[in-house]
Amino acid sequence: MDVDPAWLPAAAFRAVGARRTLVRGAGPLVDTVRAEVARACERFGGRVVPKGTPAGLVLELTGGAGGAGDEEAFACVREGGTTTVTAHGGRGLLYGLFHVVRLGEDAFRGEWEREEHRPTVALRMLDHWDNVAVHPVMGQVERGYAGGSLFWADGRARGDLERVRAYGRLLAACGINAVAVNNVNVHATEAHLLTDRIGEVAGIADALRPYGVRTHLSVSFAAPVVLGGLPTADPLDERVRAWWAAATARVYEAIPDFGGYVVKADSEGQPGPFAYGRTHADGANLLAAALAPHGGTVHWRAFVYDHRQDWRDRTTDRARAAYDHFVPLDGEFAPNAVLQVKHGPMDFQVREPVSPLIGAMPRTRLAVEVQATQEYTGQQRHVCWLGPMWSEVLRFRPDGEVPAGRLADGLVAVSNAGDDPFWTGHPLAQANLYTFGRLAWDPAADPLAVLDEWIALTHPGAPERLAAGLHAVLDGSWSTYEKYTAPLGVGFMVQPGHHYGPGVDGYEYSPWGTYHFADRDGVGVDRSAATGTGYAAQYAGPWAKVYESPDTCPDELLLFFHHVPYGHVLHSGKTMIQHIYDTHFEGVEEAEEARRVWAGLADLVEPARHARVAERFEEQLRSAREWRDQVNSYFLRKSGVPDERGRTIY
Amino acid sequence: MDVDPAWLPAAAFRAVGARRTLVRGAGPLVDTVRAEVARACERFGGRVVPKGTPAGLVLELTGGAGGAGDEEAFACVREGGTTTVTAHGGRGLLYGLFHVVRLGEDAFRGEWEREEHRPTVALRMLDHWDNVAVHPVMGQVERGYAGGSLFWADGRARGDLERVRAYGRLLAACGINAVAVNNVNVHATEAHLLTDRIGEVAGIADALRPYGVRTHLSVSFAAPVVLGGLPTADPLDERVRAWWAAATARVYEAIPDFGGYVVKADSEGQPGPFAYGRTHADGANLLAAALAPHGGTVHWRAFVYDHRQDWRDRTTDRARAAYDHFVPLDGEFAPNAVLQVKHGPMDFQVREPVSPLIGAMPRTRLAVEVQATQEYTGQQRHVCWLGPMWSEVLRFRPDGEVPAGRLADGLVAVSNAGDDPFWTGHPLAQANLYTFGRLAWDPAADPLAVLDEWIALTHPGAPERLAAGLHAVLDGSWSTYEKYTAPLGVGFMVQPGHHYGPGVDGYEYSPWGTYHFADRDGVGVDRSAATGTGYAAQYAGPWAKVYESPDTCPDELLLFFHHVPYGHVLHSGKTMIQHIYDTHFEGVEEAEEARRVWAGLADLVEPARHARVAERFEEQLRSAREWRDQVNSYFLRKSGVPDERGRTIY
Repeated sequence: MDVDPAWLPAAAFRAVGARRTLVRGAGPLVDTVRAEVARACERFGGRVVPKGTPAGLVLELTGGAGGAGDEEAFACVREGGTTTVTAHGGRGLLYGLFHVVRLGEDAFRGEWEREEHRPTVALRMLDHWDNVAVHPVMGQVERGYAGGSLFWADGRARGDLERVRAYGRLLAACGINAVAVNNVNVHATEAHLLTDRIGEVAGIADALRPYGVRTHLSVSFAAPVVLGGLPTADPLDERVRAWWAAATARVYEAIPDFGGYVVKADSEGQPGPFAYGRTHADGANLLAAALAPHGGTVHWRAFVYDHRQDWRDRTTDRARAAYDHFVPLDGEFAPNAVLQVKHGPMDFQVREPVSPLIGAMPRTRLAVEVQATQEYTGQQRHVCWLGPMWSEVLRFRPDGEVPAGRLADGLVAVSNAGDDPFWTGHPLAQANLYTFGRLAWDPAADPLAVLDEWIALTHPGAPERLAAGLHAVLDGSWSTYEKYTAPLGVGFMVQPGHHYGPGVDGYEYSPWGTYHFADRDGVGVDRSAATGTGYAAQYAGPWAKVYESPDTCPDELLLFFHHVPYGHVLHSGKTMIQHIYDTHFEGVEEAEEARRVWAGLADLVEPARHARVAERFEEQLRSAREWRDQVNSYFLRKSGVPDERGRTIY
Repeated sequence: MDVDPAWLPAAAFRAVGARRTLVRGAGPLVDTVRAEVARACERFGGRVVPKGTPAGLVLELTGGAGGAGDEEAFACVREGGTTTVTAHGGRGLLYGLFHVVRLGEDAFRGEWEREEHRPTVALRMLDHWDNVAVHPVMGQVERGYAGGSLFWADGRARGDLERVRAYGRLLAACGINAVAVNNVNVHATEAHLLTDRIGEVAGIADALRPYGVRTHLSVSFAAPVVLGGLPTADPLDERVRAWWAAATARVYEAIPDFGGYVVKADSEGQPGPFAYGRTHADGANLLAAALAPHGGTVHWRAFVYDHRQDWRDRTTDRARAAYDHFVPLDGEFAPNAVLQVKHGPMDFQVREPVSPLIGAMPRTRLAVEVQATQEYTGQQRHVCWLGPMWSEVLRFRPDGEVPAGRLADGLVAVSNAGDDPFWTGHPLAQANLYTFGRLAWDPAADPLAVLDEWIALTHPGAPERLAAGLHAVLDGSWSTYEKYTAPLGVGFMVQPGHHYGPGVDGYEYSPWGTYHFADRDGVGVDRSAATGTGYAAQYAGPWAKVYESPDTCPDELLLFFHHVPYGHVLHSGKTMIQHIYDTHFEGVEEAEEARRVWAGLADLVEPARHARVAERFEEQLRSAREWRDQVNSYFLRKSGVPDERGRTIY
């Protein structure tokens, strides 16, 4: 089959394509804008007109000095029957065009005042966990649920990059401006992308550049040893610094607008500065120094913890690790080093508190990382729209005042896209990719408005029944998934390894620092300062207090912060155990209802797309029932407390 | 390093090699005997002498008609200063030689009466679960813990079969006379061994033949479709019958003494007669008919059960499956079809009752299958000598009278050998291979005598401290392993997939039919006739009664047959929960003691061998502690009952 157009079907350009449009300015991104408009006009009867001709739409690159953010800003006004978009930079003009596309006919109605648009977050990035050589366990794309890699196949960069260009276009249309093209776990083959195989990366960069997307590369901290033949990768060793400087200069020869490096160091077996007795600031600054002359940035992941923990040891708390490792280093990172922090303290569970590291390092540049690929949220076999989760994170105010979305220099998502014809395996998972881009542009945006925007773009002219149906299926899907999986923030009740499906004790006696401590009396992790691991005290004043006590801790995070008896009464008025039973039954019922709604849309959705989603709903329901029954049985067997409503628990 | 000589070091031939020996008779196996003696004489100063010359040892192939078993029988006498071994067949003479080797100098002392030796069990076989093409999950050898395959490498039969010849020699020395050279899970590549790749099998057969070992092949029931291009593999279809007849004739052209087929059908995804609405007798008889003209045998595995069971369904009991499937077919199998039954009803757990199928099909030929490869008994990282377990099985009297070892036409072990320099990964696991062969020859043998025989052969002239140390390390090792792993016959508390290490709930919510049903009140599976699955009633009279009640059920099988509360008092006088705690602490202590004993033998054991075992003991101890702590923690958390002795449970 052809590749799905996702949120850029031809019909989305109807309003623009029907106009006479003047595109003013020069440069590669203006060329992209002009080509987009021309293509739309070919289909819908409009024209790209020369200067001096009356036009319904003017897209104009203006001169003038601008701030750093101005390259991406644009202004929009409608007067005298003409809609005018102006921008200082090519990217701004491109984003302005897609803004007009989103508005559709509304862009050409009435008159309106000049509006300025600019992204809140400068770097809006996708990290691809794509391997060049198929990994024996993780495959072509680590935690990938959308087929093969868009970039790599048969052990090298794809020869045909048409699909990559189409990807860049989709990303531009939702505001994403950077892509890291390989897995943060840098294996032997992938290490060479930095040096002798940089040409392959340059080809990808060429394909993404016309849509304003810069290319980044994940690199191995051990590269000077592995690739350079040096005896050390010590960040303070002069030979190492010289090696990185030279290697980086060669990268920029191949890719003049190269974005920079992404590094997973001293994490889950990846090499890092600890081996040399150096700090992570030393490590990050080494790469930052190599990148600085060229304007590049190093993204240094804060995902550092002991993954060989002894489950018997209750004093070590993985949730504390990122804060404990990095807060002491605040102020020591170079200006072009960005600390990339996962949104929660653990690892992309369906429910976690916001990482206390966010806001705790005021003198360090910060990127917040979320996971669009649904590793722990149904692996694109379950519908689970993550907009509300990400929005909660971005609106969270670590100090009670400034929201996390304003504290970040960058927002990063682990991509959920692959060479699947629908891009994301589950066609509705496209909404996650789109929503991420739009929330990165404006973290204060209402995610439901973004959802409706995605629905309207993806199904231009959709009848109300379709739009309402899609909204209904997606809107509560995260909450539904949470209900039938791990309760009350406890997390990690999954099958080890592949992380799909229930395994209540799957990580309970593991070395991964992921425990729930369920016994016959209660469940949960005491992370209070008074009697637990002290994690709650890592938060700034108000939150430390809120999380410290089960009386004030929000219900949905109760078991993340506290070990409580099964009879503990939640703020909802239910006992904890009854909440577990109820949510698990409800979650399955909600998933059944979503499937029913989807089935009712069969006449309105393209058949292949409808069938793909319908087929995934079958698996979602099977899996949801498995979750419900395993979790309920587990807790009934442990607690001995019967369900108040006498439903079947095995 | 060189390959370890296992139980045939040169010194084991000292007594024979120092004599003047006359070998009388002709034929390939007599040639083997002559060559063995000659090689020993070269080293130890003896001579192979011609007829008419005085000799200390006479090995003589005698004429005369014999029964079917006579080919393998031999007689032995010592008079007038000469030890004489006579046999009707070449194999008998070979086994007689190895008998003399085992006796050592005792073979040449005093005078003794004529003794007759013949195997109790005609077919003493090893099944190799070796793949030709490396399986993406299971590797070169499925459930192999001893390196690669002895037979296959790089996708084809090994070119150099020297190692295979050495293997055949070791097998002959413990009485094994048949080997199936490929995995019972027959994958795409391996299916072709039957047809276009039979030449590779013939090469292996040539290498094994001089030691009296016949070669068998695992085949796919779907071969007529997969290889023959037929539209069906229906056993009653004439085209299918003709295809098997022709294919089998070609096998015998390549391997005139080919042993026959091994078939895993309708089991864990393998194809079988159920697809055509036929019985397993129909399936087995199809292959039996193809083999009969050539004297071959089909080994038809009885390992048939529903591996897609719903864990919620408590009415289905995997333990019942083999009996339920096969007993109704008694009398329907061809004379050259052998039903190959696992020794227990589940799958090679450290403790299972003897399969009720054994003895329940008097009109069907039976082979009992045990597992030398330590899939569930420490994977050759733990020392676990299985002699006592196998002996218990073989001495078990299903009807209260005839022991299982006498009911069997064949004993089969899944091989634990590979291309590891020590053959079996753990050097002490050699004892399992040797013990299997000797118990197959004589199921009534005292396993401890066999153990001492193995020690004496492997370490000729060993000082008493070494012999006693080895005996101490191995003797109780099965009991020790049982103590620190799954208690009281409950089984399957292992990590899913690879089956190494504890996972108390690892198979609890799985489709594999492997549950323990632990809740806050108790644990175990009610398999009684009165209130449970009825499995206990599959046994003949006396055992059905014994197993039916927890009052009479042996302690070690209590949780296999009954679900009892944690406070249930065992025959030992302990509560069930205290038994769990105590055995887990004891098991680790016993493993520590074994390690200590081994360490004390460093001066007496060849350094590489000592180091290999010492290194494995480190892992065994780590793992044993993990087992102890996970199992004890699991049951403390569930039961809430503290350890009477206040030891640390996490």
